Amino acid sequence: MPNVSRRSATAPMSPIRRLVPLANEAKRKGKKVYHLNIGQPDIPTPKEFLDGVRSAPVEVLAYSPSQGLPEAIEAFLSYYREWGITLSPEEILITTGGSEAVLFALNVACDPGDQVIVPEPFYPNYNGFSRLAEVELVSLTTSREDGFHLPPQEEIERLITARTRAILFSNPGNPTGAVYREEELGLLAELALKHDLFLIADEVYREFVYVGVHRSVLSLPELGNHAIMVDSISKRLSACGARIGAIVSRNPKVMDAARRCAMARLSPPTLEQLGLVAFMGHPRHRQVLQEMVEEYRRRREVLARELALIPGVSFQLPEGAFYMMLGLPVDDAEAFVRWMLTDFPGEETVMLAPGEGFYKTPGLGRDEARIAYVLNEHDLQRACEVLKRGLESYQEVAPKAPV
Amino acid sequence: MPNVSRRSATAPMSPIRRLVPLANEAKRKGKKVYHLNIGQPDIPTPKEFLDGVRSAPVEVLAYSPSQGLPEAIEAFLSYYREWGITLSPEEILITTGGSEAVLFALNVACDPGDQVIVPEPFYPNYNGFSRLAEVELVSLTTSREDGFHLPPQEEIERLITARTRAILFSNPGNPTGAVYREEELGLLAELALKHDLFLIADEVYREFVYVGVHRSVLSLPELGNHAIMVDSISKRLSACGARIGAIVSRNPKVMDAARRCAMARLSPPTLEQLGLVAFMGHPRHRQVLQEMVEEYRRRREVLARELALIPGVSFQLPEGAFYMMLGLPVDDAEAFVRWMLTDFPGEETVMLAPGEGFYKTPGLGRDEARIAYVLNEHDLQRACEVLKRGLESYQEVAPKAPV
Repeated sequence: MPNVSRRSATAPMSPIRRLVPLANEAKRKGKKVYHLNIGQPDIPTPKEFLDGVRSAPVEVLAYSPSQGLPEAIEAFLSYYREWGITLSPEEILITTGGSEAVLFALNVACDPGDQVIVPEPFYPNYNGFSRLAEVELVSLTTSREDGFHLPPQEEIERLITARTRAILFSNPGNPTGAVYREEELGLLAELALKHDLFLIADEVYREFVYVGVHRSVLSLPELGNHAIMVDSISKRLSACGARIGAIVSRNPKVMDAARRCAMARLSPPTLEQLGLVAFMGHPRHRQVLQEMVEEYRRRREVLARELALIPGVSFQLPEGAFYMMLGLPVDDAEAFVRWMLTDFPGEETVMLAPGEGFYKTPGLGRDEARIAYVLNEHDLQRACEVLKRGLESYQEVAPKAPV
Repeated sequence: MPNVSRRSATAPMSPIRRLVPLANEAKRKGKKVYHLNIGQPDIPTPKEFLDGVRSAPVEVLAYSPSQGLPEAIEAFLSYYREWGITLSPEEILITTGGSEAVLFALNVACDPGDQVIVPEPFYPNYNGFSRLAEVELVSLTTSREDGFHLPPQEEIERLITARTRAILFSNPGNPTGAVYREEELGLLAELALKHDLFLIADEVYREFVYVGVHRSVLSLPELGNHAIMVDSISKRLSACGARIGAIVSRNPKVMDAARRCAMARLSPPTLEQLGLVAFMGHPRHRQVLQEMVEEYRRRREVLARELALIPGVSFQLPEGAFYMMLGLPVDDAEAFVRWMLTDFPGEETVMLAPGEGFYKTPGLGRDEARIAYVLNEHDLQRACEVLKRGLESYQEVAPKAPV
């Protein structure tokens, strides 16, 4: 029998995948599991988008151009204009989700073996993309105590080598909830210019900012050809299954290279592009986006109030996105999450994403877990109560790490 | 300014891309251009599919599982059962178009630097996928005179090296229209077993067979773990913009590796999977598929009758798919296509895909062009008349190659 390739056989499974069967087993036994572990919002996809898909006057469901339908590119352009960012159609390429945009950005910025600096904790799928692109991620550690903001310039600069091609970051941050301040973006821009790097900003949570304002990497005039922005409608339209994202840059060489990457896969899905066109053409669209953010703002407050009542947990109020990294009074968050799924008594339990999967540096994040506040306020409150009871019970039975 | 990566900057543009601006220019000048160059059918997407998308009871357009929705996997399973192929759900992974399935297959079969044998002429996007996967394609030349059927065993075997991991082929063939005979598949199977290779069969044109019967790579019991099948609904449902394909194998290691590839990109589009579920659940679905094939069968006959009237062209009646490689009485088919778009007088012209782009061996296919019979019978007839006049006029003005 022929062997499968080493690269595919050894591609890491996300750590959460190990826990999913346990959650399914718990549900099979009749347990209610509150999923705080996934970034899949429960909020209905706006009617204006779904109606656009449903009423699209499509007779032949044809390929779109590989860079996207002209009217969908215009929909992205009009969206960015609302954020004060003026772009031309050649500066946008529509991708199959933000995932493909990250992959194209890494392919465009790097040849195999090149390095990309990424602040950790970071979105674990960056590991998968960098593996596909054969790019080495170099982690820049940030900490819960600093609200996951950037360390001083010299700490970043220490990581830059002759093979460094880019700094990749999500802003607002998944899993951190951090929103980079003007001076942090200024620092990154300065480093990009000084060391001739690309800044690849994953801005899919742009709308979700509760403290301060969001500054796009495209709004820094000095950055010019160094800026690559990754976007997606998945979160802001609660339309993860639409698979519509974008890669955006004012650098014509970047866009030419991205178009070459895009050609082989033919096109992003057509109908969902038309859904976006309908949504952006609807007079209520800005209001719908704002209502979505307000819902998350309320959940964030509920979550913070409830978590504050749990002894031993630590967190900072997230500034953006819909995630929070929570410090837990346990030695091994994964063991705790597993216990909650298999051994915690009662009708209900809660599932969190163990923190280790968000770090590259071994050993970091072991006492942390990511919470996604993608449940309604009532469920969120209930989930926090269950978590509180769970932690109390676990402290009595948990194995202690040797001191 | 940072440089973009070598791999992305130098990724080849498909040769047809050079001609598209000329076609657009001709249209701007009011010329009617018959597009025989593209694989985008003009046939309406079945109502049963589009209605399924439109009426999908979706409130939150969520990610599907990365291997696809269980009900969509079941729809694929029931489709294969109609072809006499019994599979289990773990043997199918739904992909974002057949494109992604080819890319996953190459990634699973090969590590960077490995080789894959592919009969030429072949689908040019295989070049893009192999570049992304850093796999070297080794071309096995077939000829128009043989109807693009396979050469004898020793000619294939001569290409096998220590780095060969797979043989990739489309069957029915794009651009050849060849449908491999039982003994050809048997030969490939024998080679795969003898040299421990994967057979990667791109069977997206399975339905479109006019001569003989289609044998899937999955129907050869002896192949077992060696067979990987690539599929897509793009052509058989005239739904290229749906971006729904599949990678299928009975080899559990292949499927485990494919699932690992699939995880980073999260999921294929959700609504179109539901469209497929609706289509396959409709009692008329087999009839709809057959009507689609009958339409192409009629076109193929119209095309053959009309082309037979053009002096100097040569072809064999295609056995499957909806393509034909046409030998032209010119030295340089690309120059002829360009001339048809820029200099051919009159109200109408025709665009073909120059043959060279379908070969890897330099110099081959220069006097060939691929025709896709994706126009209705009337337009197809008219396009052939225009082509006939074009060739007559061109012979008077064309530069002659030195003898």
